[in-house]
Amino acid sequence: MTRLLAYREDIDRQLRIQIGSALEHLGLINDFAPELRNRLEDYALRGKLIRGSLVPFTYDLLGADTVSREDLFKIAAAIELFQSMLLVHDDIMDQDDVRRGKPSIHAQYRSDGREGGLADPEHYGLSLGICAGDVSAFIAFGVLSRLELVPLLRSKLISFVADEMVLVGVAQMQDVHHGELPPNKVSLEAVERMYRYKTGRYTFSLAMSLGSQLAGRDDAFRKTIEDFGEALGIIFQIVDDKIGLFSPEEKTGKPAGSDLYEGKKTVYMQTLLAEISGPDRDKLEALLGNIESKEDIGWIMDQLDRHGIPDRVEARLRELSIECRGMIDEIAAREPKFAEGLRWLLDFNIERDY
Amino acid sequence: MTRLLAYREDIDRQLRIQIGSALEHLGLINDFAPELRNRLEDYALRGKLIRGSLVPFTYDLLGADTVSREDLFKIAAAIELFQSMLLVHDDIMDQDDVRRGKPSIHAQYRSDGREGGLADPEHYGLSLGICAGDVSAFIAFGVLSRLELVPLLRSKLISFVADEMVLVGVAQMQDVHHGELPPNKVSLEAVERMYRYKTGRYTFSLAMSLGSQLAGRDDAFRKTIEDFGEALGIIFQIVDDKIGLFSPEEKTGKPAGSDLYEGKKTVYMQTLLAEISGPDRDKLEALLGNIESKEDIGWIMDQLDRHGIPDRVEARLRELSIECRGMIDEIAAREPKFAEGLRWLLDFNIERDY
Repeated sequence: MTRLLAYREDIDRQLRIQIGSALEHLGLINDFAPELRNRLEDYALRGKLIRGSLVPFTYDLLGADTVSREDLFKIAAAIELFQSMLLVHDDIMDQDDVRRGKPSIHAQYRSDGREGGLADPEHYGLSLGICAGDVSAFIAFGVLSRLELVPLLRSKLISFVADEMVLVGVAQMQDVHHGELPPNKVSLEAVERMYRYKTGRYTFSLAMSLGSQLAGRDDAFRKTIEDFGEALGIIFQIVDDKIGLFSPEEKTGKPAGSDLYEGKKTVYMQTLLAEISGPDRDKLEALLGNIESKEDIGWIMDQLDRHGIPDRVEARLRELSIECRGMIDEIAAREPKFAEGLRWLLDFNIERDY
Repeated sequence: MTRLLAYREDIDRQLRIQIGSALEHLGLINDFAPELRNRLEDYALRGKLIRGSLVPFTYDLLGADTVSREDLFKIAAAIELFQSMLLVHDDIMDQDDVRRGKPSIHAQYRSDGREGGLADPEHYGLSLGICAGDVSAFIAFGVLSRLELVPLLRSKLISFVADEMVLVGVAQMQDVHHGELPPNKVSLEAVERMYRYKTGRYTFSLAMSLGSQLAGRDDAFRKTIEDFGEALGIIFQIVDDKIGLFSPEEKTGKPAGSDLYEGKKTVYMQTLLAEISGPDRDKLEALLGNIESKEDIGWIMDQLDRHGIPDRVEARLRELSIECRGMIDEIAAREPKFAEGLRWLLDFNIERDY
């Protein structure tokens, strides 16, 4: 993380500037604008700003200096504003009332509605949450449109970002669908596809490709980085699944097996479901989403072991890791410094345990 | 309407092309993309496309020909995609299951969820509706970023549109708030402010200003058009309020007084509430939102007359109309043909009765 955190202060500053200049003058219209300014600022800045940071991280490792630092951090801020938009809407879809240790945006508005004695605070919170997310994305596009970059590159970046956001929106639809399906109706392949397109492209490919495009690298190079990002995204999510099953509470702040309590579709569960049969399968299907005791958790953990699922997932991680290292080697021939950064990023993602 | 309808076919064509090219290739990722393509196309094309049409309407009346027809209709299509985004999200906020004579987008997904036996079809519909709206806006920005215009003008337009969309998002927040407040807590002034910023700027100023900017007119001219759009928006909404109270069912397809049944905040009701006192006020407040009979409607209509509200609203309409004509006269000195078009637009909006 440390290497990414180096950019935090600058992105933080740009986020404040951009959110402020988009909303401040609208105080003349109503009180929601200045209020939203505070909320969005607080919400965006409580994140780790990893996606935004990957833009200057990539750009700097490619040794470029054609773009102003100001523009670079504005783009990072825009990426974080898109992230806020997606998370604000995500919180509504997942009915998550807490995000980054504080009430999520729709939950904040719901509380306001309650305090104001409104007729339907639940729906009020949801509605204002939708608006707040929308506004965050509009601010982001405004930031991109005002970059001081040469106009042709600016339009190309906006076009790229808009297309990637369409993709993430469509992937999100499938994620919502998975959430509503019974566990045995979601295939391992569908889960991995989600990891690739939702997490991979959006978290890694988008930001790193932007960094590469800003550094003037060609489309073939950019494509390699995007492929790397997709594979890294799958690794990231599989490691997330591993943590959700096996990391102790001291590390994660959640009880071990917390994903099981939540009935989450993971590579572990979807692999197990593809293997298990007979009465054990019936029992597993009945348990998922209805876990009541530590014994239930223990039984599922036992089934995972019995069918060799952790080993198979580790094998898949190694496979993906080899794939990533192959791409890094390809990149190293042209960009040794950047390749070294990618190795660090890959190792960091594989080794994290919380 | 006829003069605006002239552009329909071209905008329609661009909408199909743009929605198609944004979503078609994503069929590789999941089935939601091609499905959404059909839904969005159908949804967008069922509208009157007035906002989109105002772009070429303005541009043509200004006698410009520096921008390709292709670009002009792409911009119009983008405006309609933003409109779809706002309406899809609006339908969720207003809990409207029908839009333009068919199920609204979230209602369509809810039905799918029911048919697919999903756990919570209501929430599924809402979630996919949020995503569908988001995707529509992303497609719109993609369209704008790929215009063949000179890149500098392109960025300027994106910037302008993004800023206006921030404004409409913030105005929408207040609209949601008004919807949840008891009738006596919303002032006439707040309602008019909403009409100005939500309807006026968004429906008229945005599209006409784009037409003017494309035609190369200066910022002072553009500002006059935007002011005209704001005032026209207030007129449009007041006439809407009038129709909702007084137009017969044969014209509107809704029973006379339908706004009263829905407890809508209108210039009529908010003016009456500012006037009425004593037991009549108590009765009115108790009735609004709880109307049960034609007698109730009759009593409110009677109160409106008794306090001279319709006359006062007509006076306000005349005042706004004079304001608009003043701006048209100013414009006529430089652009007689465009001024004539604005006169037609103003008269059309004042005279409509359904």
